[in-house]
Amino acid sequence: MILGIDPGLENTGWAVVNYELRISNYKLLDYGVIKIKSKDRLKDIYNGVEKIIKKYKIKEMAVESMFFAKNAKSALKVSEAIGAIKVCGTKNGVGVTEYTPLQVKMALTGYGRAEKEQVEQMVGTYLKLQKVIQPSHAADAVAVALTHGFTMKY
Amino acid sequence: MILGIDPGLENTGWAVVNYELRISNYKLLDYGVIKIKSKDRLKDIYNGVEKIIKKYKIKEMAVESMFFAKNAKSALKVSEAIGAIKVCGTKNGVGVTEYTPLQVKMALTGYGRAEKEQVEQMVGTYLKLQKVIQPSHAADAVAVALTHGFTMKY
Repeated sequence: MILGIDPGLENTGWAVVNYELRISNYKLLDYGVIKIKSKDRLKDIYNGVEKIIKKYKIKEMAVESMFFAKNAKSALKVSEAIGAIKVCGTKNGVGVTEYTPLQVKMALTGYGRAEKEQVEQMVGTYLKLQKVIQPSHAADAVAVALTHGFTMKY
Repeated sequence: MILGIDPGLENTGWAVVNYELRISNYKLLDYGVIKIKSKDRLKDIYNGVEKIIKKYKIKEMAVESMFFAKNAKSALKVSEAIGAIKVCGTKNGVGVTEYTPLQVKMALTGYGRAEKEQVEQMVGTYLKLQKVIQPSHAADAVAVALTHGFTMKY
């Protein structure tokens, strides 16, 4: 079971993917976004992630990282969220791995400059989905969870 | 009692300042740096901050923030630490306020472009210290704790 997380300024996407390594079978169990309900954004995110970890007895977490951003200030704010998410994982005994957007694209499409649609299409194929996952933060969380599965395998 | 925190990439400075608002009396109770002992930097920082909060029954925390940095990658890493520190505060019922380096300089010297030495000198004067606080991350933590005290006052 892998928890994928796509940290965001407003909403943080999450997805729980079950995998059977031996037969390369991946199954999307659940997904959604952690919404900010209070003035305390980081605490909402921490508590939201912790709830999912406990519900699904998560042992491994894959977080999409950020290497640069158009807006420096929002990049710092997203990084604060990443800090809260990672510390939530490790304090709950979860192994935390970060993947860059480039790594996600490479793992899913074999091409580092793949378009968003190509990534979504591959996610749909691997998971045998009938439609594209919405909202996009949740779709990105599924992609990073799959990336972790593929990366562990090879 | 105010806990001042200066988040860093390697070490995170902290300082506990007691204040009596009525008589404008500030006293430095304790200070130091949270060292990174394991591979899990954020967890070490979170646990280190939590230990100080519990030991001194902290209710208010002042964190020095970052608005930009020379090195974008290290700025993101420091922001992750800030995220872990802030969420540690709020999860422990502590009121968390952030101050920019500019705000700290303004509060302590009245001059936003003050040199480090001027800030240190004012800290020494307010707290009646005999010598400069070392290491500098701890000194910066004292400065941000005082900034919070002064800001609440006026």
